[in-house]
Amino acid sequence: MATDGRYFNQASKQLDSNWELLKQGLEEVPTWQEWTADQSDGNKTVGVDPTVITAPDARKLAEKIEKKGGAGLCGVKTNLVDHVWGDSRPPRPKEKVRTLPLEFTGKNFEEKIEDLRKELEKKKSAGLIVSMLDEVAWLYNLRGNDIPYNPVFFSYAIITPATATLYVDSEKFSPDVESHLGDKVQVRPYNAILEDTKTLSLKPEIEQSMETNIAEKQSKEPKRKFMISTKASWALSLELGGENEVEELRSLVGDAKAVKNKTELEGMRACHVRDGAALSEYFAWLEEELVGKGTELDEVQAADKLESIRATKRNFAGLSFDTISSTGANAAVIHYKPEPGNCSVIDPKAVYLCDSGAQYLDGTTDTTRTLHFGTPTDMERKSYTLVLKGVIALDTAVFPKGTSGFALDTLARQFLWGEGLDYRHGTGHGVGSYLNVHEGPIGVGTRIQYSEVPLSAGNVLSDEPGYYEDGNFGIRIENIIMAKEVETKHHFGDKPYLGFEHVTMVPMCRRLIDVELLSGKEREWIDDYHKEVMGKTKGFFEGDERTMKWLERETAAL
Amino acid sequence: MATDGRYFNQASKQLDSNWELLKQGLEEVPTWQEWTADQSDGNKTVGVDPTVITAPDARKLAEKIEKKGGAGLCGVKTNLVDHVWGDSRPPRPKEKVRTLPLEFTGKNFEEKIEDLRKELEKKKSAGLIVSMLDEVAWLYNLRGNDIPYNPVFFSYAIITPATATLYVDSEKFSPDVESHLGDKVQVRPYNAILEDTKTLSLKPEIEQSMETNIAEKQSKEPKRKFMISTKASWALSLELGGENEVEELRSLVGDAKAVKNKTELEGMRACHVRDGAALSEYFAWLEEELVGKGTELDEVQAADKLESIRATKRNFAGLSFDTISSTGANAAVIHYKPEPGNCSVIDPKAVYLCDSGAQYLDGTTDTTRTLHFGTPTDMERKSYTLVLKGVIALDTAVFPKGTSGFALDTLARQFLWGEGLDYRHGTGHGVGSYLNVHEGPIGVGTRIQYSEVPLSAGNVLSDEPGYYEDGNFGIRIENIIMAKEVETKHHFGDKPYLGFEHVTMVPMCRRLIDVELLSGKEREWIDDYHKEVMGKTKGFFEGDERTMKWLERETAAL
Repeated sequence: MATDGRYFNQASKQLDSNWELLKQGLEEVPTWQEWTADQSDGNKTVGVDPTVITAPDARKLAEKIEKKGGAGLCGVKTNLVDHVWGDSRPPRPKEKVRTLPLEFTGKNFEEKIEDLRKELEKKKSAGLIVSMLDEVAWLYNLRGNDIPYNPVFFSYAIITPATATLYVDSEKFSPDVESHLGDKVQVRPYNAILEDTKTLSLKPEIEQSMETNIAEKQSKEPKRKFMISTKASWALSLELGGENEVEELRSLVGDAKAVKNKTELEGMRACHVRDGAALSEYFAWLEEELVGKGTELDEVQAADKLESIRATKRNFAGLSFDTISSTGANAAVIHYKPEPGNCSVIDPKAVYLCDSGAQYLDGTTDTTRTLHFGTPTDMERKSYTLVLKGVIALDTAVFPKGTSGFALDTLARQFLWGEGLDYRHGTGHGVGSYLNVHEGPIGVGTRIQYSEVPLSAGNVLSDEPGYYEDGNFGIRIENIIMAKEVETKHHFGDKPYLGFEHVTMVPMCRRLIDVELLSGKEREWIDDYHKEVMGKTKGFFEGDERTMKWLERETAAL
Repeated sequence: MATDGRYFNQASKQLDSNWELLKQGLEEVPTWQEWTADQSDGNKTVGVDPTVITAPDARKLAEKIEKKGGAGLCGVKTNLVDHVWGDSRPPRPKEKVRTLPLEFTGKNFEEKIEDLRKELEKKKSAGLIVSMLDEVAWLYNLRGNDIPYNPVFFSYAIITPATATLYVDSEKFSPDVESHLGDKVQVRPYNAILEDTKTLSLKPEIEQSMETNIAEKQSKEPKRKFMISTKASWALSLELGGENEVEELRSLVGDAKAVKNKTELEGMRACHVRDGAALSEYFAWLEEELVGKGTELDEVQAADKLESIRATKRNFAGLSFDTISSTGANAAVIHYKPEPGNCSVIDPKAVYLCDSGAQYLDGTTDTTRTLHFGTPTDMERKSYTLVLKGVIALDTAVFPKGTSGFALDTLARQFLWGEGLDYRHGTGHGVGSYLNVHEGPIGVGTRIQYSEVPLSAGNVLSDEPGYYEDGNFGIRIENIIMAKEVETKHHFGDKPYLGFEHVTMVPMCRRLIDVELLSGKEREWIDDYHKEVMGKTKGFFEGDERTMKWLERETAAL
């Protein structure tokens, strides 16, 4: 059993002596791929369930196995874990699938399909098989409830120059879905996808175009292939005939989805104002409870209050992930998840880190604020301020089109690095529009994949550097930023220049800012930001003196 | 004929109507690879001289050809250009090869070979074939004169766990070379390399280790292969049996060479002080001639004067590249090369950009300074200052080990980007130790390869942002910096933190600095730098009032 640091403890407790635990990420421990290849020595074959590994990952594993003297990798239809489940396995969820109106999506699915078909023609492709759930949901303007926090549903889609097919069990449809899809989309059962792709691989839909009157072209055009995402399962690739019969590339749908349209950007702005108001109301309440009244509150009780405030906001559709509500040393655990009965009482004399977000019909939010209700230590203030300088550096970056999030990552880390500090997570991830709170292909960080995808106007990203001292405290500040074209004083070359607009509307923590460490421009940025937060959210606090007073104090000029 | 922007004019003039010119780098023009693949349509085979293409490039080209319906790529022994040369081709140079003493190299070649053999053992490799000329020269502590400006000689080397072979025509040896190499190195004729590698591919030198008493290991270890650089020729790879019989990777020798030892770093410091003194003497002379005396000087005359000053310095061994001595609009041509009779008279009222360097026995220099002898325009001052801010940002960067020059590049560009400006070249290249002025594998820039090689303590790099206005003016500032471990106030994680030490000792141009655009720290950096320049070079100017006066003025506090 191989797992990463989040589950070392649990796995050690739950595995009996029949199991060996491979702690992934430790230097002396082989990766599960290395371990697997080692076992194959002596011309052995390794089996894998091809529905749970991508085709590129399967190929890399096969190479490792062959290098180590194994016979190869084989896709095995019987998954041993399924076998153990037997009849006790819970059925696949059958939550309702519903339409998302044009006022939120900004674009009919018919138009999205037309755009894709233009790409198919450009790339001389037979069609596109869409396997990521959020991509299917985005493409057809549908949403579901099959995965907690992610409004998606089990499905596939196939788009060819002439057809559009959606693979989903149609008994899940809300009444309006069928009329929404009309006769432009063929609906097929979810389980039919593998069988159908096998047929597709045999008869390409497109006639080979003939160019007989150009003398140099003595042969026919190469056969048109289907495109699948590099993240699609190996099973899908195999059914289509394997890597030589299919074109694997970064998903066209994923790329299109990451560039939000005007309606989606407007929705992002609007839902972040409502969400920001909820967070300010929550922080003001929390401070009064902890400091004013001396109430004892644990991390889960606090998080529940936050959810109840968010639930009152227009277009609210649930949380976008488990709220990280963490006090003191818990804030140093990057993926901390407090659970009822297994969490800490919030210490008003320690930092409190709250990373949370919600789904709204008009957008998805993700905000982190680190607060202190008493007197922070010098190191807490210093590291908070260095992290904040990083937030501002990315927020105010201007860069030519073609620049990737890999290149911008350094801007967010430079101030921490200068003091010998750093954080072991990315700086930013893509965010969906009432979809997954983490989405590709863009991101800001040291992962080499981020260097392959330049940022585009319309990309929505998080900006969230941090600093963590194990067993002591943790700092993270997270705003959502949207890439856009910007006017610059001069203009060198023919590429547009891009910058960001921030949409998160929650004050920074004054007690944790060391003004001495800020440049004049950074100070100005914070004051401007606070003015903006006040201006955009104060309307929510008429009659709510507590929040208004808190917000006035927190957004006053530095 | 395919060529890049530097030769568009010359090629258009010299090619007759039998030729088609493929202007590489223009968007509407296919790359030579695309063009070649297009010609192959209809199952045609493309031939290439395999000694002038790398194995990875040949594979990529073959793939393109097959995708376009061609039959494939074939290595052809008869190079058509050689055929045209006939007997008129100049013979291969037979310049002397000489030893470089330990006081300059800091490490005996025997030790370098021992280090490599440890790597061979770790990687279970049959041996290493060294094909880059500067790598052979570095490995054996030899230098030659076969290539202008680069003190290398035509050669190959093969290192196995038991043998060390140098392929070079031994009549080129200076008398001391044979005793230097002794009986530890087998010398073979340069032309024997391809024949010898063919033999090597048949009988690996190493016995396969047997591990019969470990039950799981049922097979022998995989056959040990020879390693060649990804930059080695396809011919070499083919002689060794092709990609399945050989291990292609970034050269181990190149990696080792890029990490300079203490002696080499000390040499870099020392030669840059001498070289800096030569540049200050030159700039002071130039100003007096142009402004004081009103002498008319062209770009080549000025460059010749600079060379004559450099030639008086200890350990001088020639220039390290063609001096770029450029006035006004010529400074906007990044690879400008003034030639006698085809260059401009220096305009004392325009910017003057001088990018030059020399070879010294103890190191290689490369410095760019942009000067103005009169009153610069606002845009010249602004862009100079933004470029200088970039130089400082890279110079003062602190970053954890593992960070690449790709990630740091953004620091040097950020200020220009903020104003909508940029430059179309890299920010930094590796520099050899009395070797090639450009060397890999490290570098700072937007080339994706730079993201694959983290910087290490001991790397020597240029730090040279710029800004160019076609037909108007050009700015470039270039210092040489050396990566080193630095002490930081705190220390997060287990990686060391790195920073840079600058070794170039030439003042920045005061007239071009707009102090308003500098932060307090940047101003301090410039003042400190100028103090250092004065302190380290003033010893050269006893009795040289002109230079001393110029240096005092240029290095006074801002």
